[in-house]
Amino acid sequence: MEAGLFTANNIWMMICTALVFFMHSGFAFLEIGLTRQKNTINILFKNIFIITVGLLMYYIGGFNLMYPGFADGSAGILDFAGFGIAAPENGMTPEYADGGYTWWTDFLFQGMFAATAATIVSGAVAERIKIGPFMIFVILYVGLVYPIVGSWQWGGGFLSTLGGDDAGFYDFAGSTLVHSVGGWGALIGIYLLGARIGKFGEDGKPKAIPGHNIPLATAGVLILWLGWFGFNGGSVLSGDPELTSLVLVTTSLAAAAGGVGALILSTLLYKNLDLTMFLNGILGGLVGITAGADLMSPNEAVLIGFIAGLIIVLGVAFIDRIRLDDPVGAVTVHLICGIWGTLAVGIFGAKAGGDQFLYQLAGVGAAATFCSLTAFIIFYSLKKTVGIRVAKEEEVDGLDLHEHGMDAYADFRMNQH
Amino acid sequence: MEAGLFTANNIWMMICTALVFFMHSGFAFLEIGLTRQKNTINILFKNIFIITVGLLMYYIGGFNLMYPGFADGSAGILDFAGFGIAAPENGMTPEYADGGYTWWTDFLFQGMFAATAATIVSGAVAERIKIGPFMIFVILYVGLVYPIVGSWQWGGGFLSTLGGDDAGFYDFAGSTLVHSVGGWGALIGIYLLGARIGKFGEDGKPKAIPGHNIPLATAGVLILWLGWFGFNGGSVLSGDPELTSLVLVTTSLAAAAGGVGALILSTLLYKNLDLTMFLNGILGGLVGITAGADLMSPNEAVLIGFIAGLIIVLGVAFIDRIRLDDPVGAVTVHLICGIWGTLAVGIFGAKAGGDQFLYQLAGVGAAATFCSLTAFIIFYSLKKTVGIRVAKEEEVDGLDLHEHGMDAYADFRMNQH
Amino acid sequence: MEAGLFTANNIWMMICTALVFFMHSGFAFLEIGLTRQKNTINILFKNIFIITVGLLMYYIGGFNLMYPGFADGSAGILDFAGFGIAAPENGMTPEYADGGYTWWTDFLFQGMFAATAATIVSGAVAERIKIGPFMIFVILYVGLVYPIVGSWQWGGGFLSTLGGDDAGFYDFAGSTLVHSVGGWGALIGIYLLGARIGKFGEDGKPKAIPGHNIPLATAGVLILWLGWFGFNGGSVLSGDPELTSLVLVTTSLAAAAGGVGALILSTLLYKNLDLTMFLNGILGGLVGITAGADLMSPNEAVLIGFIAGLIIVLGVAFIDRIRLDDPVGAVTVHLICGIWGTLAVGIFGAKAGGDQFLYQLAGVGAAATFCSLTAFIIFYSLKKTVGIRVAKEEEVDGLDLHEHGMDAYADFRMNQH
Repeated sequence: MEAGLFTANNIWMMICTALVFFMHSGFAFLEIGLTRQKNTINILFKNIFIITVGLLMYYIGGFNLMYPGFADGSAGILDFAGFGIAAPENGMTPEYADGGYTWWTDFLFQGMFAATAATIVSGAVAERIKIGPFMIFVILYVGLVYPIVGSWQWGGGFLSTLGGDDAGFYDFAGSTLVHSVGGWGALIGIYLLGARIGKFGEDGKPKAIPGHNIPLATAGVLILWLGWFGFNGGSVLSGDPELTSLVLVTTSLAAAAGGVGALILSTLLYKNLDLTMFLNGILGGLVGITAGADLMSPNEAVLIGFIAGLIIVLGVAFIDRIRLDDPVGAVTVHLICGIWGTLAVGIFGAKAGGDQFLYQLAGVGAAATFCSLTAFIIFYSLKKTVGIRVAKEEEVDGLDLHEHGMDAYADFRMNQH
Repeated sequence: MEAGLFTANNIWMMICTALVFFMHSGFAFLEIGLTRQKNTINILFKNIFIITVGLLMYYIGGFNLMYPGFADGSAGILDFAGFGIAAPENGMTPEYADGGYTWWTDFLFQGMFAATAATIVSGAVAERIKIGPFMIFVILYVGLVYPIVGSWQWGGGFLSTLGGDDAGFYDFAGSTLVHSVGGWGALIGIYLLGARIGKFGEDGKPKAIPGHNIPLATAGVLILWLGWFGFNGGSVLSGDPELTSLVLVTTSLAAAAGGVGALILSTLLYKNLDLTMFLNGILGGLVGITAGADLMSPNEAVLIGFIAGLIIVLGVAFIDRIRLDDPVGAVTVHLICGIWGTLAVGIFGAKAGGDQFLYQLAGVGAAATFCSLTAFIIFYSLKKTVGIRVAKEEEVDGLDLHEHGMDAYADFRMNQH
Repeated sequence: MEAGLFTANNIWMMICTALVFFMHSGFAFLEIGLTRQKNTINILFKNIFIITVGLLMYYIGGFNLMYPGFADGSAGILDFAGFGIAAPENGMTPEYADGGYTWWTDFLFQGMFAATAATIVSGAVAERIKIGPFMIFVILYVGLVYPIVGSWQWGGGFLSTLGGDDAGFYDFAGSTLVHSVGGWGALIGIYLLGARIGKFGEDGKPKAIPGHNIPLATAGVLILWLGWFGFNGGSVLSGDPELTSLVLVTTSLAAAAGGVGALILSTLLYKNLDLTMFLNGILGGLVGITAGADLMSPNEAVLIGFIAGLIIVLGVAFIDRIRLDDPVGAVTVHLICGIWGTLAVGIFGAKAGGDQFLYQLAGVGAAATFCSLTAFIIFYSLKKTVGIRVAKEEEVDGLDLHEHGMDAYADFRMNQH
């Protein structure tokens, strides 16, 4: 391979790594924007914890748990290539990974992905989870659960060869392996935690608890869209001109169509131009296209995104209906749209077909089983021992005061609620 | 062409695409920062609408309206290559566009540009325009007006060959084709809308209506400067080392000089270190250099930027003087500095000369005529049918409450004004 | 050299330039976030001044003062290659700088670095320095002090050849040459300025003056981490796959470990999950790894970062103890961790050894002597002539009102303090 091509490939992957890293700003902004000011420090703390500790966990063992080097994937369920990230002999040469990037870039790109799964959970459980138990959850979920599920597919494990050596579950950039993994954790978390005080009235009807900083939430969504250029674009695993540029087009069109889908349906249903639905529609479109961003035509991307936008509006209403409290809509965005995007690979695009649809179902089911089970074990154990929910007084006063002794906006005068 | 060069070129263009996309965060921050908190949701909604719907309009037909493939440009005024973005046979090979990028990258880079023109209008008409009619304007302006003007030059139309096959109007990255196109829409919009309540006293003197979030406005300008690395740097249409790096140098120096020019003049005139003028000076310098960023020496870039900075201070005062109300200074920044930058190509740099100056004047005139006419037709039709201005009560209460039923900063206590 | 490799290299360097530019948003956010709302406009003004005027000063003379082209470094202390940035004959060819980038990219990348040093000072002297004298300081420090120190090492001067042609002081991306240069200016500045009113009680005990916008401060740190991908990644001075990707890994791991180190120690000492310490720990880790990011293994990077995190907690307490008032912790982050990172090159990694440690000490000493002396001369001269500290009334009311006649958050109701 010519030096220029290897260098260009690796540059693209490093840029994508930087963009995925920047998504953590986007998640943090979105989460604080859609919640109350009194829990802002707590949310920022959680997000900073996730990116720092998550990266270190991935360095200590996660990377080698996710990419253990299954000789053939047919039976790969659990293996471990050792602690640390010692590079293989050819790790810096074009022989490694078909010259798409170096070993160091490989680790860092995947490490930035890993932390994302926990961030999704963070949004759902916001405003009432105890910080200590949440930190334990992050360590276990990023350090063990995420890499094991990932190994089944991206690490060459059993999901990747369900239909034989050349066929199996397909998840280009992680509608299931990242977003649903986070989404299952989020669902289990909010189920075990219960709703925030005041979220459901005595009649059981959901009440809106308005977010306190919508400009930051909007910025968060735009940063996430930008970051998805790296999230999906980098999942090509090289700078291949045709594939990378197709992926950016399908990703952006799905995002736009997702926003428009959610806008249209929410305006029809609620007679209101709802910015939050618009924003979550964009995220739904992004999550939806993620499993097949490299397989779809632009027209198919628009369709997948648009349907994801509709799902957002219905999903948010459904989560409310079953009396779960998800302050930022994380379950709808990441879990439901993640499932939709994963199944869409069997319906649209280059791999569409009945067999593929079944492989996709199998992948969804495997992640559902393992993630909901492990998330339940972790959260339930914590609940029964140290407890996972803050005291009522702390929730009313805000977590910033009790857990951190700090105020996010010291000079501003606030309304208490 | 070697694979490494093609890959590197395409990577550069994809990065520039991402940077231009990110400018929409910058525009949104700038616009909300310089206006009042009660209209924040409305402004964010408009900006999210522009980027999503703008991109979809460009996908449906805009791209093929702008690049219809005039066989020779001499008579190219209007043509259409069909709906959608079906790729040509060689669209993913180095044969396409001299190997500078793939067809997919081409579409997405241009699509991100397209939405920009409408965003410029958004800032000028903020705080009193009805959201429905504005959405219609965006669809027409991004879907039809912008691509048609663009086709005259970048699409190979008549402006590109005014002086024969090798000579004509020159607009490297869009001082006229993007910024003035937006600027004319902004000017017509604020003329037909009228000033915000309270902007001009009974004596006709302008009163400052202070922006509510200057940190966001400042961040917006820094993000726009960053985005201009892609806006101008990507307009090289390849990763050519000499040209791209020259363009980044001229762009950054013009930005810096524009800021300093505005700072000096505003400090002399008003005896005050005015941050807003400083920021708009930077933007003026950026708009000013955009038409000839690839033609100028660093010294010429500093001069063009500095003059643009002076123009900002005088232009803002002039717009006030003629009793137009432009809350963010969009007309001065994008229209007046856009004209200045376009004419500067005839005065400074590699193409300077009397003939070129006349071509530049012709380009300015063509855009002025077509854009002001079409913007007038759209806005005036809307004004005479559904109306374009919100009711007085809504303007006083803020558009967020009436149009969106949402509060941008729910927990903060606010001053009403 | 093949065109693809040259193009790829230059693209990487341009991206890194953009990322270092974006750090100025990060610095601005961090500084306003950790201070009071009444000084926000002033801080934004200073930061915008630094990036615009700093870049112009570097263009006028700084670049040629820093890279004067010492024929051999053994006696290079002061030289000047002339005003402006006229490109050498081969400046756009692969012959220049081993094909790592063009002359234009070289200038712009270094120019973005230059402004950083002054930004560090800005944070430390916030909330009480007069704006006029600060602007003079910036012009002299960016235009003269920074380039002269830089020339001693990066420009091929005497520090680079302390141990003969192949050995000398080593500072990969500027733990000393950027961060300590800024840090010494900060230390001298806060010593001569004195503490803010209310920082130390009558008993001499430090009192916390809480920052007013912690979301922006957190965003600032994440933007700075992102920017460090360019700051350190670009210091490879080409897109070399192995080195650039190693540098991103060591940089990110040190950042994560720095955060965790500061979190652990501050929690042990103060029984509080302190977000500000967590954030400054990340910055400390980043500054600490900067001198040897290309020399360290991942394990060594974690260790260097972790120790830097511990230093942050102790350093902030120490600065308080000696009754210096550094509102954002700039001296601890940039000076103390800068010294630590510089010395760590002699202790860990590919160059570790007694001789190297002495060269590192010599570099630290040379920067300490020259920077503290020149900063003292500048600040002291200003203090004795025009004064450097605002009047008491202005400090109490806030600098925004008196120096700029503007309010950062016009619509928000504030607490006065």
